Amino acid sequence: MKIYAERMRAGGFKVNAQPLVVSEQESSALVDAGGGLGQVAAMSAMKLAIAKARKTGVGVVSVSNSNHFGACAFYAMQAIEHGMIGLAATNTGPTMAPTGGREGRLGNNAFAIAAPAGKSPPIVLDMATGAVAWGKIFVAQQESKKIPTTWALDKNGLPTDDPNAAAHQGLIQPFGGYKGYGLSLVIDILTGVLSGGGFSTHVKTLYKEIESPAQSAHVCAALRIEAFMPLSEFQQRMDAIIQLMHSCPTTAGVERIFVPGEIEFETEQKRRNEGVPLNAELQEELRVLGAELGLKTPF
Amino acid sequence: MKIYAERMRAGGFKVNAQPLVVSEQESSALVDAGGGLGQVAAMSAMKLAIAKARKTGVGVVSVSNSNHFGACAFYAMQAIEHGMIGLAATNTGPTMAPTGGREGRLGNNAFAIAAPAGKSPPIVLDMATGAVAWGKIFVAQQESKKIPTTWALDKNGLPTDDPNAAAHQGLIQPFGGYKGYGLSLVIDILTGVLSGGGFSTHVKTLYKEIESPAQSAHVCAALRIEAFMPLSEFQQRMDAIIQLMHSCPTTAGVERIFVPGEIEFETEQKRRNEGVPLNAELQEELRVLGAELGLKTPF
Repeated sequence: MKIYAERMRAGGFKVNAQPLVVSEQESSALVDAGGGLGQVAAMSAMKLAIAKARKTGVGVVSVSNSNHFGACAFYAMQAIEHGMIGLAATNTGPTMAPTGGREGRLGNNAFAIAAPAGKSPPIVLDMATGAVAWGKIFVAQQESKKIPTTWALDKNGLPTDDPNAAAHQGLIQPFGGYKGYGLSLVIDILTGVLSGGGFSTHVKTLYKEIESPAQSAHVCAALRIEAFMPLSEFQQRMDAIIQLMHSCPTTAGVERIFVPGEIEFETEQKRRNEGVPLNAELQEELRVLGAELGLKTPF
Repeated sequence: MKIYAERMRAGGFKVNAQPLVVSEQESSALVDAGGGLGQVAAMSAMKLAIAKARKTGVGVVSVSNSNHFGACAFYAMQAIEHGMIGLAATNTGPTMAPTGGREGRLGNNAFAIAAPAGKSPPIVLDMATGAVAWGKIFVAQQESKKIPTTWALDKNGLPTDDPNAAAHQGLIQPFGGYKGYGLSLVIDILTGVLSGGGFSTHVKTLYKEIESPAQSAHVCAALRIEAFMPLSEFQQRMDAIIQLMHSCPTTAGVERIFVPGEIEFETEQKRRNEGVPLNAELQEELRVLGAELGLKTPF
């Protein structure tokens, strides 16, 4: 919240920007986010993709000139209530090297795919292409703990178990080695290259150069299920594949098998009942920010 | 080649099957492969996806009732000469467990994405969701070598460095842990579940039950680049992002940075000049097969 407010006030988020459809075909469109909030542009793009998919079976909308948009899953999940499969992807500022390299050339680029089920919650796969988020490395630093050698590279491009070496001019490793690198590059092509927006080193991270838009790019897509089969049949088939995962005999010590999105779904139910825990530091940060903006926090 | 001929003769590949368009919308279609060769059905599906993308910007074609189709990249790459980005994915017989499980519930499902560049060869990412192919485990068995503990599980679902334990009722591990599991499941949804074809345990592997079609399913998609920007501009942008990868300073000991598809492209050039090496066993296998079928091998 704090960095969002700072970027808004510094000019990195253009608060009055309106997403503009630059060009479109029956099943595709290109949207210019005008340097505004990624959330506003991506919601608009997802709505357009859904409207196109309703008519033709598929909609793909590319977004340039945007900013950080939060979690990919949120946009992909918009498609579910329309009986569609949703996809959203974004690039981000460079924090990973191509395999064999030692300088940031690709973001911890991420995507999500969401598909409705029947009795089960929807399947929602939301994943970044990095082995880990920086946050976990910072925590290891604070706690003086070693990190797995698959998480980060030191400044020479070599795997390290020292969180300090990672944080000091180091990089995040792609997950799964060169496969993660390939996925990250392909996401950059489908977002940055295809939209005419920023890609690779042209994209800025959320926390740096807060005076100007990050030049992030996104892609949002929807696939209408009834273009392939009745929705109810698809939902039954989804329940069946989920059941096949859940019923798999487990390894010793494993209580339960999860499908993508299931832990998050259960957490959401819990948070809706019990509230969202905020630690004291975050509460204080929000209180200070609220005071600056003339807003009162509810705690 | 041998297993292909065996499946054809045993009935697992219906040699006279014609791919049939079961339903379609402007940008989507569902194709029934009729239990024929996966190659025939996927080529037909890719052509249809390209034709739809030419009109609307995007085409997505799902294929049910199919068989093994070889390398995903081959189909994805069909889109390139039409100025499009191509995608192809397939499910396969179950050889992986969901994370925490110890029975096969998902195939080493795979996908490919291909995008044209200008001066550079196209980017072609073709990847399976398993950490390794069975072939590499069999080689380790023959050579009595240990395998990395990230490759396979033993029959109890525990990571093993013993290729014999892997081969004896063991499983392949998804690449990158639960992320690979999630990707494999999502590919099964986009192919098997969405097409009305086989998924999870309903799909047979190439080598088993050769009398009946494997019930594999595929999805083929094309995205028309000129729906977003002039093709020449896209090609220049692709060359630029490829250049950004190639120019990344390397880690000590690394000579060159590759982009996805580059090694395969260079190998193709070499093979076209120098021929394709076939080891003595494979030559003999082809000679025997040729004799059975009344065909003469050129070696």
